[in-house]
Amino acid sequence: MINELGRQARAAGRSLARLTGEAKRDLLVAMAVEVERRASSILSANAGDMEEARSEGVSEALLDRLLLNENRIRGMADGLRSVARLPDPVGMITGGWNLANGIRLQRVRVPLGVVAVIYEARPNVTADAAGLCLKSGNAALLRGSSYALGSNTAIGEALTAVLTAQGLPEHAIQVIEDTSREGAQALMQAREWVDLLVPRGGPGLIAAIEAEATVPFVIDGAGNCHVYVDAAADLGKAASIVVNSKVQRPGVCNAAESLVVHEAVVDEFLPAVARLLLDAGVELRGDDRARSLVSEILPATEEDWGTEYHDLIMSVRVVPDLDAAIGHVLTYGTGHTEAIVTEDVSAATRFTQDIDAAAVMVNASTRFTDGEQFGFGAEIGISTQKLHVRGPMGLESLTSERYLLFGDGQVRT
Amino acid sequence: MINELGRQARAAGRSLARLTGEAKRDLLVAMAVEVERRASSILSANAGDMEEARSEGVSEALLDRLLLNENRIRGMADGLRSVARLPDPVGMITGGWNLANGIRLQRVRVPLGVVAVIYEARPNVTADAAGLCLKSGNAALLRGSSYALGSNTAIGEALTAVLTAQGLPEHAIQVIEDTSREGAQALMQAREWVDLLVPRGGPGLIAAIEAEATVPFVIDGAGNCHVYVDAAADLGKAASIVVNSKVQRPGVCNAAESLVVHEAVVDEFLPAVARLLLDAGVELRGDDRARSLVSEILPATEEDWGTEYHDLIMSVRVVPDLDAAIGHVLTYGTGHTEAIVTEDVSAATRFTQDIDAAAVMVNASTRFTDGEQFGFGAEIGISTQKLHVRGPMGLESLTSERYLLFGDGQVRT
Repeated sequence: MINELGRQARAAGRSLARLTGEAKRDLLVAMAVEVERRASSILSANAGDMEEARSEGVSEALLDRLLLNENRIRGMADGLRSVARLPDPVGMITGGWNLANGIRLQRVRVPLGVVAVIYEARPNVTADAAGLCLKSGNAALLRGSSYALGSNTAIGEALTAVLTAQGLPEHAIQVIEDTSREGAQALMQAREWVDLLVPRGGPGLIAAIEAEATVPFVIDGAGNCHVYVDAAADLGKAASIVVNSKVQRPGVCNAAESLVVHEAVVDEFLPAVARLLLDAGVELRGDDRARSLVSEILPATEEDWGTEYHDLIMSVRVVPDLDAAIGHVLTYGTGHTEAIVTEDVSAATRFTQDIDAAAVMVNASTRFTDGEQFGFGAEIGISTQKLHVRGPMGLESLTSERYLLFGDGQVRT
Repeated sequence: MINELGRQARAAGRSLARLTGEAKRDLLVAMAVEVERRASSILSANAGDMEEARSEGVSEALLDRLLLNENRIRGMADGLRSVARLPDPVGMITGGWNLANGIRLQRVRVPLGVVAVIYEARPNVTADAAGLCLKSGNAALLRGSSYALGSNTAIGEALTAVLTAQGLPEHAIQVIEDTSREGAQALMQAREWVDLLVPRGGPGLIAAIEAEATVPFVIDGAGNCHVYVDAAADLGKAASIVVNSKVQRPGVCNAAESLVVHEAVVDEFLPAVARLLLDAGVELRGDDRARSLVSEILPATEEDWGTEYHDLIMSVRVVPDLDAAIGHVLTYGTGHTEAIVTEDVSAATRFTQDIDAAAVMVNASTRFTDGEQFGFGAEIGISTQKLHVRGPMGLESLTSERYLLFGDGQVRT
């Protein structure tokens, strides 16, 4: 089963690798049009999924993620159009030089081949992931949630119809019908066929992939992000950075979960910022020193320091010096985004050197770790691993590089 | 056990990450001196390993790989000195731009943290791997063969003595004493501690890592490399490229294993090149067409097309056209190095576009896929995977990148 899908994807990927940037742009625009044209059949498939999910008693939150409507269909189409407009990552020469014997060497960006995506209830991921994979010249194996299978299949059929109409291999996009646990595991272990697996889901999915996957993958992991307010911080900047990092969108991975304050400024800073956070509805959980300054702060447990709340909750730690702040961040951080607020160049230098994270901010909100903010256009995720790609993943993260060497009969002596 | 080693390595890695390029250069030079100074104790440990291996009846080939002598000790020291001279890969700014709101972004090369190396009998890998890891700012967990444990330990002690003398953490280099199968497996699955695993060994080790490792790894895989001689080849260049690719060093992964010839030139080309190859001691195994032209060619089986001989053996296939050549290479190649010999620009373009390999040569020997030839200085291996690094792996393959963002109080709106 997975071998059949994989073989078809591999063959389709070879055709996609040859497409010009123009052809890929036109393909994605046509797909956007087709998704909108088929809105009513996609919505009716989605209504079926919704009904079945409701009858199985799934949560309202999951139902909301599963739901499609006219607006969300338009969002999918707009997403395809915006990926269509991005520069083609394939064929870019990323380096080149001559060897001593005159061979001209070029390092050229190429598609990976076959990209698999395992995702949860949101059916729009089907179109998003297909667009990113095609734009980067890869065939896509899309394995969504069983709840969304009807919707995903309808969206996949729209995309496939465009492939066929343009004379392109229909298996460039395959929505996997087998949504069983075993099917997912087979996909995670199809080393012969899958060049990259991208999980789009929660901690359970990530843990399963870390434990079971044998194909290469990139993890979009947890973000237990800290804002450290240094002794030399501008406290006005600090307050707005802390509040923005926590409150602007608390459910995402680049939101701050923990505030670390130098004791030299804590008396002045903490009561003021705590007031702002409490007024914004944030629950604070702090150490004894923090609680002695602000009575509304609840006691923090050891577990709090390591928790990514994804919610309007923030832990508060008071530290005696920069070293203790760095130690705290290194102990509890997840390598996503860490920020320091300081006017002291030496403190900023120490923090940026010692903190091992995908992004380290000096005097800026943690919320800037984001593909769109970085200027990458579309974002596939934010990698918290160190190999292949770290931080926001643009289209380039779906490519590899190949060396081309042009000689005139050179041999090694 | 692995947790204790890992924790120590992680802590040591944090210190190494702060070292200047000058400090790392001096460290490796001092290690080279110390290895030479301790030559007699290293050789006596090696003599013990050799005696025990002999008493266990291991092969002469393995005994030769295990053996150290004055020359090989000097080779280790020279290797450390040559890595010492390479530019420091850490701290290099690989990109940078301003975000729309004025935040200045830099992408900076940083060490991975902890690199584990699993290797086979050669004790010199202990010094080689230690040098590469330290130069790139990483702590090293070195797990060699049980046969070489005495030698590896003696070399490790020399390196550790220099670390201690220079006030650096002794656990920056750790020779793992547990050389059991279970110990290797624990290392392969120590996701908390190992940022990259580099295997230096044969197909058995690679297969074990592909099946069992959960830590990130880079595979230095098989090279079933082809030379395709096109209808438009300069047959003089073709002959020297084929002979060089096969004969110059047949035991390595970038040696050619298979000759593919366009039928338009096979009558003229094959008898001449076969004579050169046969005279160089190469056994040829070909299809019926090849055998009809050269009586000394033995029949090739299906297995031959997929075999990396690592020896003076070469398979010979005659194809009707470029498409068939590309198809053959894609079917049987391992994505290492593939070469075309042609004077036809269109044929060269098709071949370089369609062949998915780490390196594609036009009119040059496959033997050029090599870190030193590419100008990387030291080579950790040649990656046949597509993620993180592909082709010859220089020091940069032991690093990651981190984003640093410098703001002035910016928040997201």
